[in-house]
Amino acid sequence: MVSPGSHSPSAPFAAKRYELLTLGDELLLGLTGNGHLTFIGAQLGRRGVLLQRNVTITDEADAIARQFRESWATADVIITTGGLGPTCDDRTREVLAEVLGQKLVFDRAIEKAMEDRFAAFGRKMTPNNLKQAYRFERGEVLPNAHGTAPGLWVEQDGKVLCMLPGPPNELQPMFVEQVLPRLAKLGLLLDREAYVQLRTAGIGESALETRLQPVFDRHGDALSVAFCAHQGQVDCRLSSPSEKFSSAQLEAVAAECAQLLGEDFMCYGHDSLAKVCADLLRAQEKKLAVAETATGGLLAHAFTEVCGACKFFAGGVVCCSNDAKMQLLDVPECLLLQHGSVSPEGAVAMATGAAETLSADYALAVTGFAGASAAEGAGGNPVGTIFIALHAPHGVWSKKLSYPGPRPTVKSRAVNAALDWLRRELLRAQSGAVASVRRTGVMQ
Amino acid sequence: MVSPGSHSPSAPFAAKRYELLTLGDELLLGLTGNGHLTFIGAQLGRRGVLLQRNVTITDEADAIARQFRESWATADVIITTGGLGPTCDDRTREVLAEVLGQKLVFDRAIEKAMEDRFAAFGRKMTPNNLKQAYRFERGEVLPNAHGTAPGLWVEQDGKVLCMLPGPPNELQPMFVEQVLPRLAKLGLLLDREAYVQLRTAGIGESALETRLQPVFDRHGDALSVAFCAHQGQVDCRLSSPSEKFSSAQLEAVAAECAQLLGEDFMCYGHDSLAKVCADLLRAQEKKLAVAETATGGLLAHAFTEVCGACKFFAGGVVCCSNDAKMQLLDVPECLLLQHGSVSPEGAVAMATGAAETLSADYALAVTGFAGASAAEGAGGNPVGTIFIALHAPHGVWSKKLSYPGPRPTVKSRAVNAALDWLRRELLRAQSGAVASVRRTGVMQ
Repeated sequence: MVSPGSHSPSAPFAAKRYELLTLGDELLLGLTGNGHLTFIGAQLGRRGVLLQRNVTITDEADAIARQFRESWATADVIITTGGLGPTCDDRTREVLAEVLGQKLVFDRAIEKAMEDRFAAFGRKMTPNNLKQAYRFERGEVLPNAHGTAPGLWVEQDGKVLCMLPGPPNELQPMFVEQVLPRLAKLGLLLDREAYVQLRTAGIGESALETRLQPVFDRHGDALSVAFCAHQGQVDCRLSSPSEKFSSAQLEAVAAECAQLLGEDFMCYGHDSLAKVCADLLRAQEKKLAVAETATGGLLAHAFTEVCGACKFFAGGVVCCSNDAKMQLLDVPECLLLQHGSVSPEGAVAMATGAAETLSADYALAVTGFAGASAAEGAGGNPVGTIFIALHAPHGVWSKKLSYPGPRPTVKSRAVNAALDWLRRELLRAQSGAVASVRRTGVMQ
Repeated sequence: MVSPGSHSPSAPFAAKRYELLTLGDELLLGLTGNGHLTFIGAQLGRRGVLLQRNVTITDEADAIARQFRESWATADVIITTGGLGPTCDDRTREVLAEVLGQKLVFDRAIEKAMEDRFAAFGRKMTPNNLKQAYRFERGEVLPNAHGTAPGLWVEQDGKVLCMLPGPPNELQPMFVEQVLPRLAKLGLLLDREAYVQLRTAGIGESALETRLQPVFDRHGDALSVAFCAHQGQVDCRLSSPSEKFSSAQLEAVAAECAQLLGEDFMCYGHDSLAKVCADLLRAQEKKLAVAETATGGLLAHAFTEVCGACKFFAGGVVCCSNDAKMQLLDVPECLLLQHGSVSPEGAVAMATGAAETLSADYALAVTGFAGASAAEGAGGNPVGTIFIALHAPHGVWSKKLSYPGPRPTVKSRAVNAALDWLRRELLRAQSGAVASVRRTGVMQ
């Protein structure tokens, strides 16, 4: 999935070994997902570091000590998450101090910050919170603007230990605002993005590589290229490990690639498909509506996750019956009777209905059989058959998609396909290439 | 978060050490979440085993060999995921065979199964797929009904190695249908659920413990109790490690707890809040509609994830403007002007509008400021202020909620609060306790 080469093999920190220790029985029992790995892994990757290992262990003191001892012996940077809270099963601080041969000292400044925080919320601090006011004798404190337990920072034996609180809304800003700059200052990662990223949609990894190979060949080994495939998107990461290319030069190469890719180029950086659509809609001062059956609200969710969604998103309708389609979207009953609700005609009527009811310029509709119950795939269409429709100021079309796989996969692929279709249509509208080449119709 | 004691400390396999090795740069780069940990951790927990460690490492052969050697030295059961595919970076099979001192042998039966699979999809098998037809000389094959690479099973040195393919839709049925029975047969986990689980909603962990303590005290040490807190839900797991209690007796204790908890008891087992609501709606032959602003489609999504949603879910509306509320839900403009769109009155009007438009008996509405952009929290209501409303055949009410935290947290807490409110109202309707005690009104 990921080609080697993106991670600056010749960078001064390339040989440095990063490990992430995530603590908590709730992870091992499958009660919560390990979002810290996803977040920290991605953040380090953007600064040119490939996290070498993530170890998740129980809250048990012996297990923590054993693992930390092993990791400290081989890693250069160890990041831990969790176990810093006020309760008795939060033992990480004590265990690690013992392994490092350090004392924990009470820090009056931490106590004061906690008192202020409790006061701001009109609550009284209970004594067990004082546990969180201890830091390593030879270590520093990473203030926590969003919670009580501060992060802890230790440099010892030529290595770095960085302990972060478990709640994501405390950990994430602390990591970006405090940990990354400290690591960059020590030369342990880049002080800027390690690569220029082109994000593409609707094109596979190998097709992408083939299309861009002429550009890569021209630049020889000054350029390093890595591909990262997500669902429905492939990222192409350009870097220059030898630093032969400046950032500006890398950006020029990226622009050349983008040009070559045309509509398959989605954006630079890390924006989502919905965000890219949102930017296009805003730039063109257009509004969007959606109507869904099979995706059950996920398409609306994708757009409402974009900040300031109200400025471009008129709203959405989730229909689970023909009655709802007729009532909310003015889909004619005779159309549903004649063609069935899962049909190109049904999808088109939903899209047009959504645009008209919600006074939107564009509308996406998704209808079909997302799977699971066998009875769902009725009327000759097997489970995994999805019709999407796009209503635009200059026409309306529908497409048939067939996805094998379990329901969540079918749903997210259908959402991606709908988003990417809208994106391409908005691009064409922007370039004025629309009216002459597109007509209303059904494309299967 | 999890009290000790749930994991049958006296079971014959209690001292057995389970490790999960998840392979793949895409996990370490944060491109995909580690869903295998969540799934396998939960499945093992249900059979009385606490996974001791999960290690995620790169696809690099040396790293795999080093980690596997270390894990094999201390663990009793090692489960690996990924790295079994046909491409050149799928090296796990070869590396582990070398560490174990085993030969890989070509298995004609695997080749045949792959050929049949390709033929069924009308495709020709490419030669690189043949790599997947090798198994351990002294090992077995776990057939894969959903993909090409079979799982591999090795018993050696008194330990078990189980290698599973990476795609979740291949791994999950293989784990449940083949791996769990094999491990149970070897006495390495229980051949049944390890505990009786009561799921609760709307009550905190410590309040729950206090309420149930009298029951626990009465049964003494024959009973072991563990609590697992999720978002908005706390599970109480009852087991009898000494086997003094039969399953039937544990179920009787659980029923006693459920009785004591009243409405705070949600279900036995692992159902979601939406599933419990769905069952209640179906039993009462009622239909539900939803209307959302702040949760942007997540509430509709929760219901449409339930199998057969069309039987109880009429549909949903996601509104991003007052126009949409007026147009789709018949919310009167004067009401929005007088009270503002984020108000108890606005929420009530949305719920009633959804019920009427979609001919539903019950309707949930969520409106408010989920966060992020500061401008959102207008009209004296800070970000995190949510109004939910419930429309029922016997009345309509609204509630104000205040959630601090980032947008995704606010959204999911609002969804949980709305679901739990509906659940309680449906319970009251079922028991006939409704008409005499509830009136239409605004509860703040």
